[in-house]
Amino acid sequence: MTMPDLHPDGFARLPMLLDALARFSAPGAGVTRLVYDEHWCEAQVWVRAQARALGLQATADAAGNLYLHSESVQPGAEVVLVGSHLDTVRHGGAYDGGYGAMAGLLLAAAHAGQPGTPVVGFITCEEEQSRFDSHMMGARSMLGIVEDAELDSVRDGEGVTWRQALQAIRASGHAAAPVAGGLCAPLFTPRAQFELHIEQGPVLESAGEAIGVVAHIAGYRRLRATLTGAPRHSGTTPLAARRDALAGAAEVILAAEALARASGEPARVSCGRVIAAPGLYNVVAGRSELALEVRHDRVEQLDALEAALLDHCDTIAMRRALAFTHERVAEQAPTALSPALVRMAAALANEHGVAHRIMTSGAAHDTMEFARAGIPALMLFVPSRDGISHSPDEFTGAAQLQAGVCFASDLLTRITAGGAW
Amino acid sequence: MTMPDLHPDGFARLPMLLDALARFSAPGAGVTRLVYDEHWCEAQVWVRAQARALGLQATADAAGNLYLHSESVQPGAEVVLVGSHLDTVRHGGAYDGGYGAMAGLLLAAAHAGQPGTPVVGFITCEEEQSRFDSHMMGARSMLGIVEDAELDSVRDGEGVTWRQALQAIRASGHAAAPVAGGLCAPLFTPRAQFELHIEQGPVLESAGEAIGVVAHIAGYRRLRATLTGAPRHSGTTPLAARRDALAGAAEVILAAEALARASGEPARVSCGRVIAAPGLYNVVAGRSELALEVRHDRVEQLDALEAALLDHCDTIAMRRALAFTHERVAEQAPTALSPALVRMAAALANEHGVAHRIMTSGAAHDTMEFARAGIPALMLFVPSRDGISHSPDEFTGAAQLQAGVCFASDLLTRITAGGAW
Repeated sequence: MTMPDLHPDGFARLPMLLDALARFSAPGAGVTRLVYDEHWCEAQVWVRAQARALGLQATADAAGNLYLHSESVQPGAEVVLVGSHLDTVRHGGAYDGGYGAMAGLLLAAAHAGQPGTPVVGFITCEEEQSRFDSHMMGARSMLGIVEDAELDSVRDGEGVTWRQALQAIRASGHAAAPVAGGLCAPLFTPRAQFELHIEQGPVLESAGEAIGVVAHIAGYRRLRATLTGAPRHSGTTPLAARRDALAGAAEVILAAEALARASGEPARVSCGRVIAAPGLYNVVAGRSELALEVRHDRVEQLDALEAALLDHCDTIAMRRALAFTHERVAEQAPTALSPALVRMAAALANEHGVAHRIMTSGAAHDTMEFARAGIPALMLFVPSRDGISHSPDEFTGAAQLQAGVCFASDLLTRITAGGAW
Repeated sequence: MTMPDLHPDGFARLPMLLDALARFSAPGAGVTRLVYDEHWCEAQVWVRAQARALGLQATADAAGNLYLHSESVQPGAEVVLVGSHLDTVRHGGAYDGGYGAMAGLLLAAAHAGQPGTPVVGFITCEEEQSRFDSHMMGARSMLGIVEDAELDSVRDGEGVTWRQALQAIRASGHAAAPVAGGLCAPLFTPRAQFELHIEQGPVLESAGEAIGVVAHIAGYRRLRATLTGAPRHSGTTPLAARRDALAGAAEVILAAEALARASGEPARVSCGRVIAAPGLYNVVAGRSELALEVRHDRVEQLDALEAALLDHCDTIAMRRALAFTHERVAEQAPTALSPALVRMAAALANEHGVAHRIMTSGAAHDTMEFARAGIPALMLFVPSRDGISHSPDEFTGAAQLQAGVCFASDLLTRITAGGAW
């Protein structure tokens, strides 16, 4: 028996699908499609129609996640899930989420009826945190790990709860009725999960590589650091008498940068904001507040980066007679993806001579939740032009998008084959 | 003939007068008395009553400046002016302006009837820029150099013009009718002008000195500097691929500090604010805007400081592949006070063994306008505790306040004596 060629047209319709999907957007630059809003709902209707045209069923769960599968794949079946999310940031691009979602649709269609574990496309309802004060609402509800109380505690900027928002879209068929025991329960039994995504960074493009095999998703710690000195008149206060909280903050920013340099890849140490008070031309700042962040894919290194950064802050504050306080305002644990799937992808790339690298994702993705739930999970990156994402300027060329899906299709063939990895 | 002792009680009532004046304030911490507001008007009434009790006349001009003088001193007479301003910043202290104003009142009373040039106290209506979008409205109107158009172009935060505000207080007698040829004309002919003021810096207190003889008032240039890089995801963008506008700003802040250090006294180079955009934890700043200021008492040095600071900005921007632009948003020319009066004050201090220094004022004062108008002008500083001013914590001890007035009184005796300086 000869295996059929699963991508005779190289998934040529993919760029067209992405263009079409991008039209479901609020007005303004780029794509703005927030979970459960009218544009999101219209996109769901359109996705279902695309699935039908490709011979697939589209089944929504109680949170509005969508599964794209052959009629023959029954609930509870062991499957390989492939997909991404449908929501965007405000004024984002057409590729973040959309690429993986459309790839999932085409891959589920291409693999329909093939031997081995069935391939099911998935589209999570929410990943970007752009409407609700929560995170990974889609992946977590697919995994059945959302607490019922969260439906009432999670609210959008206008005070609408997750439950209220769901009730509104359920009436028009965009989410199924809740199941007993929680918002959702896994509709299928995932043997593995994987996600295609644009890199959102410049590494693959710079290196001229087609595929990033993501082995880890970095964790982060976000620290609000405050330096307190003394507000004084900029004209009457000599340098030696100043306790300048903004000059101290400047040293912290450069120390953060030096720490990142000394730590090497995949460490990140960043400061995205300084607020100086009183913030005037003629008053030496008496107080400054910094938004600091460390990232790494290993928890020990994350601990070490955070400790080193705080040490620098302490030293700088002491030398300048500033008071230093800090609080950790957010964090995310590093997550390892499936070593077996990483090896499988790297082997495939080597066999086919695909320029690739094994890398860390600096950003969080749906796949992180699947990996944490113990499901063998993998991400594949394709290059992002200039490393830009979350912007109307987000772009990946058609050939690069298609190359990613072709590679993923071949990888799926191996994943879905019987036998241990 | 024996000269009478002009300060037999050491101007003991001065602290009491300052306490009483501080009660004319809007509610809240410290003193808030904005030009022409109800508290300012009530303070004017109170000052007039104090003047009468000391045997002086109080004459308001058309802008609401107040002259405190013996009945025998007629308009147009050659006089020595001594005083300061009555308005405050919001939530300021009791000493800035108030000290010099009350000292002017007591000195005019103490010197009334003495031989030589008559001493006239003055209290300018406005110096702090806390209500109107203008500067030194009091001193400039006393000097007759306010253009008539300014009465309609200068507005407060609620859109009230200077003319409208004046009309409102004129009805209740707090300003005289306008004179032909402009808002005001000098009511007397100043042979000299001088002003007692708290230092608003820590220099005298640190050095244990009683008197600062101000020889220059520093000028400044204020620059809004903008660095533009690229906003990028803090997790996905390696250090080498960043064009971090906030890290660039941090280098500028430290370069400004180093420039001040290298330049020595009386140079000041300061950054009081940085605004980073988009200003998030997880985005490398694509743009930062700095509020930079250079000060010096010599224009050549001011030019050099500004040029050096801009050079640093250029160098830093180039090394980091950032775009750099700037605009000068405000400036003040350096002003030399009267060398003859400075010499006279220093000689007096030396003769009496008064610990003093000849110094530069880093802040602007009413006296700057008199000096620019060609009138021999001088300022004397007394120490400020911890160098604090424009704050409810502003404080100078009673003994230091009185020592300043006693010194000023002796100096006035020399200034008012006949003969060339």
